Amino acid sequence: MIDLNADLGEGFGRWTLTDDDALLSVVTSANVACGFHAGDPSVMRRVCDLAAARGVRIGAQVSYRDLAGFGRRAMDVPADELTAEIAYQIGALRVFAQAAGAEVTYVKPHGALYNRTVHDAEQAAAVVAGVTLAGGALPVLGLPGSRLLTAAEGAGLTAVPEAFADRAYTPAGTLVPRREPGAVVTDEDAVVRRALALAVDGAVEAVDGTAVPVAARSLCVHGDTPGAARIAARVREALVSAGVEVGAFA
Amino acid sequence: MIDLNADLGEGFGRWTLTDDDALLSVVTSANVACGFHAGDPSVMRRVCDLAAARGVRIGAQVSYRDLAGFGRRAMDVPADELTAEIAYQIGALRVFAQAAGAEVTYVKPHGALYNRTVHDAEQAAAVVAGVTLAGGALPVLGLPGSRLLTAAEGAGLTAVPEAFADRAYTPAGTLVPRREPGAVVTDEDAVVRRALALAVDGAVEAVDGTAVPVAARSLCVHGDTPGAARIAARVREALVSAGVEVGAFA
Amino acid sequence: MIDLNADLGEGFGRWTLTDDDALLSVVTSANVACGFHAGDPSVMRRVCDLAAARGVRIGAQVSYRDLAGFGRRAMDVPADELTAEIAYQIGALRVFAQAAGAEVTYVKPHGALYNRTVHDAEQAAAVVAGVTLAGGALPVLGLPGSRLLTAAEGAGLTAVPEAFADRAYTPAGTLVPRREPGAVVTDEDAVVRRALALAVDGAVEAVDGTAVPVAARSLCVHGDTPGAARIAARVREALVSAGVEVGAFA
Amino acid sequence: MIDLNADLGEGFGRWTLTDDDALLSVVTSANVACGFHAGDPSVMRRVCDLAAARGVRIGAQVSYRDLAGFGRRAMDVPADELTAEIAYQIGALRVFAQAAGAEVTYVKPHGALYNRTVHDAEQAAAVVAGVTLAGGALPVLGLPGSRLLTAAEGAGLTAVPEAFADRAYTPAGTLVPRREPGAVVTDEDAVVRRALALAVDGAVEAVDGTAVPVAARSLCVHGDTPGAARIAARVREALVSAGVEVGAFA
Repeated sequence: MIDLNADLGEGFGRWTLTDDDALLSVVTSANVACGFHAGDPSVMRRVCDLAAARGVRIGAQVSYRDLAGFGRRAMDVPADELTAEIAYQIGALRVFAQAAGAEVTYVKPHGALYNRTVHDAEQAAAVVAGVTLAGGALPVLGLPGSRLLTAAEGAGLTAVPEAFADRAYTPAGTLVPRREPGAVVTDEDAVVRRALALAVDGAVEAVDGTAVPVAARSLCVHGDTPGAARIAARVREALVSAGVEVGAFA
Repeated sequence: MIDLNADLGEGFGRWTLTDDDALLSVVTSANVACGFHAGDPSVMRRVCDLAAARGVRIGAQVSYRDLAGFGRRAMDVPADELTAEIAYQIGALRVFAQAAGAEVTYVKPHGALYNRTVHDAEQAAAVVAGVTLAGGALPVLGLPGSRLLTAAEGAGLTAVPEAFADRAYTPAGTLVPRREPGAVVTDEDAVVRRALALAVDGAVEAVDGTAVPVAARSLCVHGDTPGAARIAARVREALVSAGVEVGAFA
Repeated sequence: MIDLNADLGEGFGRWTLTDDDALLSVVTSANVACGFHAGDPSVMRRVCDLAAARGVRIGAQVSYRDLAGFGRRAMDVPADELTAEIAYQIGALRVFAQAAGAEVTYVKPHGALYNRTVHDAEQAAAVVAGVTLAGGALPVLGLPGSRLLTAAEGAGLTAVPEAFADRAYTPAGTLVPRREPGAVVTDEDAVVRRALALAVDGAVEAVDGTAVPVAARSLCVHGDTPGAARIAARVREALVSAGVEVGAFA
Repeated sequence: MIDLNADLGEGFGRWTLTDDDALLSVVTSANVACGFHAGDPSVMRRVCDLAAARGVRIGAQVSYRDLAGFGRRAMDVPADELTAEIAYQIGALRVFAQAAGAEVTYVKPHGALYNRTVHDAEQAAAVVAGVTLAGGALPVLGLPGSRLLTAAEGAGLTAVPEAFADRAYTPAGTLVPRREPGAVVTDEDAVVRRALALAVDGAVEAVDGTAVPVAARSLCVHGDTPGAARIAARVREALVSAGVEVGAFA
């Protein structure tokens, strides 16, 4: 059984980005932007309503406060500020999830905060402190082996490792940095094939051709590229056809 | 019995404004800024912690999204956007109130939104819809006779009328606009005297010298002026000396 | 001879909106967003570079400070604040125009500020004061008969009246408000036909079927709708075919 | 001859921080905040007017875009974005300087950007590229030996080294990091004594008691602390009494 998650609600005011409607027919977990890198209150409300109506789980996609940079610029935020910022975002999203008859059920950092907390133990701890402050002992979604998941476990939270069907992996099981050639897999058939390998075999072909084990309870499909919804749908169909149950993590 | 409320937590990042610590020793209800006109997550957390420790009731001081104008510039925000923005702010504050072992127990609009919803039925209804969306059937604090309180009652919420000891009143019982001379009472003794009149007699002297009835369950003391905390303390002492019980509204 | 202007550079960070590249091959005047409703420094630089390379005139599309509302929510900004905000935006854009070897040569308010200054004399005067403060005696683009153009002329600036080929007109020559049915003309052939009428005859068919005179030195083509660039191109071709010279106003 | 510079105009909307009026009677160079970490258009206008009236030189105090963090949180801004952001800020300030009959005559990075560009060659080059883009070949104020000053010189700009009378120095001539005890000299007499040593001897006592040479053409006095204006005035008086000419760098 595997979960499918995607970043959603990444519009802001007049601007749209993710095809929320289409993706909410495919994924089982929606990482909803909370207003710090994207997502205004109206977008958040709409996505929560839609997710709740379709039985898609709602997660808080928390970020650095950086609309101009879409949360993609790492920031040296002091730990206590970061903790409060994370809790603020979770609380704001929770109001819309609950209004829709649902709940915020997990947390996933966005962009630069996601990448930074792979290695930065202080920021990882600050994010986890924010999750704890927000109450409800929410699970944390992140990269296997990341400081973030270690900190989550240390705080008694459920750590949910995820994998990326459209990202290249090193033989060590880490992601090839985006700036390197071939970091993103754009061939749709390859993405589907890799999703299957990750879900069925718990492994994926690394850049050197070897099979590298990746233990993931969720697969992240991207939502901000053209054709994103179509690829996500193909991944889901292939998983179901292969007998994999697609469902939200426990 | 009368409630004393003040706007608190109106700093942002490096900037401070209200003397939160001193005022939280005086008031019974804290209108905490929620990040749209003032108040960053760290400030919100600190004020909630302090308010909870001292048994001061926490309210959401919701505002237009306007840091540059401190929420003092009226905006033609479409009703559905305004509703979502109000709910967002309440949800964000709630996380810090609950983390401190307390709750957000009421809502009060700030600045231009407060003034606009005295007369603007559409925005008043949008604010109330935001309060309702946020759940918990929170009471709404506002001006007696305002569209806001009418809308709150219409939605089944408790409407809490408040009065201002440091503002001049017209014979009709409305506030003299700030831009008119004498709109703000700056003489401390006069402020104390008027607070007593409002709490004990349910009336205050209007600008034409007549006594005008003002039914208020809460008195607002300002927090963003020099000496604000001292005046607030004097008001409280005078009320207690006069046998008025100072306590949060039910 | 008629000028063609369009709103450009209305992306922000990760978000795009206007097809700047295509439109800059069609219009003669580019209303470049200056960061208050849209347009970050990188976008502004890119659009200025492109406009300068193609000989398209650069104008400052100034706005209320309202990214979340895309400048479409009227705000009661005090006159002196508004004046400073207008000058700030012009100055910021000027640096990129000059770096590209060009100049900011006119100013056009955006969205709610455009609409507000049709009737609001105080804000119109404040905008014009901001233009004057910015130096260079820049022409102001606006609606014929608007307070804005009156104020501009009163300040010794050139007032440039513009018309809209895709908006319905009342018999009095004013725009039918957007919220009314039929306010926006969506049929492409009709848009082209109306553009020709405006440029050649100085008149357009009003909603009651009568011909209403509209004296315009510039036609505004919208840039933020699907197909915007194609319609703009068709308008330009039709004008040229009809012997109208398409060029920036003096 | 020595220049005295201070960070000014660091209010925003309702919030104030620096005592601009008092400091502008003391310093010879005003580092004016440009809206990215502090400073709204109205503040910028007022400070420029005041500085011009008193013959104080106006500089652009450029920053990361981070109001919530007051520009004190280092950010991984891509070079081209940073370059555009720097130019934007300079252009925005220039409009107010010129309206006041003055000019922006130099650039100084603020807070985290200042600290980052001491060592980060890429961001230093990006800042300098932004200064160059803004035109006018503006001098750059910074720490002696910083990557920023090296990059400025490499680009043909004047590099102006500055020193801090109220900061502790290592024997190597670098600043003791703020988080270390004793990093900031708070004793007023000591600050005055160190200012004299820096201006007259070109040296200051390091934390180990040795005299370390510091070649500075400008002394930075802080403006955001209580008593800042008084200390700055004492420094200036002491310099003048010692026969040091206090004046803006060429």
